[in-house]
Amino acid sequence: MKIKSSLSVREAAVRLAAESSIGTWTDISTMKPEIRKLAAKIFEIKEDVIKVAYPLDIFEPSIPQILADVAGNIFGMLDVDELRIEDIIIPSKFLKQFRGPSHGIDGVRNMMQIKDRPLVGTIIKPKIGLPYKDHARVAFEAWIGGIDFVKDDENLTNQSFNPFKERVIETLQALDRVETKTGEKKNYAANISAPYNEMLERADILKDHDGKCAMIDVITCGFSAVQSFITEERFNFILHGHRAMHAAMTRNPNHGIHMSMLALLSRMCGMDQFHVGAAFGKMEGDVEEVTRNIHSCTFDCGLKKTFPACSGGLHPRVIPDIIETFGKDIIIQAGGGVHGHPKGTTAGATAMRQAVDAVMDGVSLETHAKTHEELAGALQKWKSQYS
Amino acid sequence: MKIKSSLSVREAAVRLAAESSIGTWTDISTMKPEIRKLAAKIFEIKEDVIKVAYPLDIFEPSIPQILADVAGNIFGMLDVDELRIEDIIIPSKFLKQFRGPSHGIDGVRNMMQIKDRPLVGTIIKPKIGLPYKDHARVAFEAWIGGIDFVKDDENLTNQSFNPFKERVIETLQALDRVETKTGEKKNYAANISAPYNEMLERADILKDHDGKCAMIDVITCGFSAVQSFITEERFNFILHGHRAMHAAMTRNPNHGIHMSMLALLSRMCGMDQFHVGAAFGKMEGDVEEVTRNIHSCTFDCGLKKTFPACSGGLHPRVIPDIIETFGKDIIIQAGGGVHGHPKGTTAGATAMRQAVDAVMDGVSLETHAKTHEELAGALQKWKSQYS
Repeated sequence: MKIKSSLSVREAAVRLAAESSIGTWTDISTMKPEIRKLAAKIFEIKEDVIKVAYPLDIFEPSIPQILADVAGNIFGMLDVDELRIEDIIIPSKFLKQFRGPSHGIDGVRNMMQIKDRPLVGTIIKPKIGLPYKDHARVAFEAWIGGIDFVKDDENLTNQSFNPFKERVIETLQALDRVETKTGEKKNYAANISAPYNEMLERADILKDHDGKCAMIDVITCGFSAVQSFITEERFNFILHGHRAMHAAMTRNPNHGIHMSMLALLSRMCGMDQFHVGAAFGKMEGDVEEVTRNIHSCTFDCGLKKTFPACSGGLHPRVIPDIIETFGKDIIIQAGGGVHGHPKGTTAGATAMRQAVDAVMDGVSLETHAKTHEELAGALQKWKSQYS
Repeated sequence: MKIKSSLSVREAAVRLAAESSIGTWTDISTMKPEIRKLAAKIFEIKEDVIKVAYPLDIFEPSIPQILADVAGNIFGMLDVDELRIEDIIIPSKFLKQFRGPSHGIDGVRNMMQIKDRPLVGTIIKPKIGLPYKDHARVAFEAWIGGIDFVKDDENLTNQSFNPFKERVIETLQALDRVETKTGEKKNYAANISAPYNEMLERADILKDHDGKCAMIDVITCGFSAVQSFITEERFNFILHGHRAMHAAMTRNPNHGIHMSMLALLSRMCGMDQFHVGAAFGKMEGDVEEVTRNIHSCTFDCGLKKTFPACSGGLHPRVIPDIIETFGKDIIIQAGGGVHGHPKGTTAGATAMRQAVDAVMDGVSLETHAKTHEELAGALQKWKSQYS
């Protein structure tokens, strides 16, 4: 943790170690010596960075409980002016008490029959407003053009202009037609984010219509629901984790929680795919941060690996940077960067795949564009990272 | 919203209104004129404060969905450097689609048979570490001394040193003994915060043993679980809402979400009681902020009122300030300020009640302490707000 305090860092550290384990602000009559072994211990202070160790006995395998310990009241203590959790290390014997992803990167690759390249996804745009038949049609156009994954946007759930059930039925029918036509595997992440009981109802609708992938917005829904969902044994979805609202607590470098911790907690809760930022788009998060988020998704720990999804203002021109920086075990998603193509969604989807193919073949986008007009059209529209 | 941006405020405002409704970062082929009526509209810009109106049609009565709209991706947009949601106004016709508290202030007062004074609560301390029998004994001592409400601390859930079921059974038995002995109504808020399926199991245990009050940590659990819980018809608990972790996103005055919005969302989800800060204790949150949080809990809107709980480093000496500032429709909670009393928990509980009685009778603490030794002991130990 990084601390700014009007007290000395050491003094503030002692108080926050107490507040996040056994302590309170005053000496109390009910304290006993044997309880002190449950206290958090400060084991390193370097300038404003402190390292705190917690005994495993204070935790149970519940993300809400872990957060209440290590990320609970401490952010509001007057003893600190600013406080940032920079990193968390969880022993693998405790990590193993969480389910983690059911499918993971390997499972998703097997299901999609894509071994050696990044997956390519799109978000249906406009974010909200399309009637469900148009939604399905746009999905069809994207898949036909070469997109692997189609997902709902985070604020599209079950509104009257596009009801969940009708959208799922229509979009999955479009998916079947594309798979038959192309012989390729496709997927659709339907956004089931809702109060938990409604989340389950929507998941049942999705299952009843043979959907293979569900999207959950991890932060707006919260970890109680997210950790519970994976234990509902009747489902076996690929779980696609969105992270809307994360930046309310992750963006300030001096206060809040580093995104890599939220990525790890999401992996522990079973997200097969999770948004990690892109570093080359419209959203904050630089290469170092995205790299750390990807590490949370993929480091060896006994849990399956979460497929990192790069998303937010991406388009074909930035694909070489993304793959060269983050490798091929990623999902590259573009919304506007697909549907904003001058020739429309199908051409935009094709341009995305052409850009990925160019990178995998070691060819520059400019060279590849000479023989691939969709890519040429995209490069002409978006001339730089920020278009 | 308050914006800091490298663009002009107007330009940044336009982009964030788009991102939080129908838009994306580039023009797209799938946009249609009839969809534009769902766009968010900026209706006022004053210096760095903007006001945005959203059409109701883009929402469904789901807190996760509302957050994905108004508090979703916008915090991470590169177009803004810092962004703070200062306030949200929800039309009452939409508010009424949420259940709100089942009991509210009036229901809690009826159940407790306390009409005219603030309720007095304590959190069992040490936060964690007490075996369940000791936990129940400390609760007994607090109730006997005059405390109305006993609650678990936020990080005490179902650990091996103090299993949930045994704690609930033992503590509720202590409660029965106290009620018989004193003829007063007492209550125990058992912390059921957990992954949702386990939250329900714990709620069932609590119900089976005739518990009347459940505590949920709203932010660490998240709104999907919290909004769902109130729809589980077999329960009729008083719901006590804790807010651990809120300050990760509410504390920075220039980024994140004002606490009063989280208080309103918690009321919409059915919290009968909710932590609002104290302004006179160990936690951040000044009088203005706490006043706004209390307003979210209690303004007339067709939903029952949430009982605001003031908590965090409180003790008898600060009670006059709290009641004079926030009124008598509050719950005053103290952990260390009870169990830290030189004569122990029962004396500490009595001192809290004596301080409340003094204020309600218009007598100064110093005068009241002359004939009330428990209060005198507390004033001697804690000589100022920060002890």
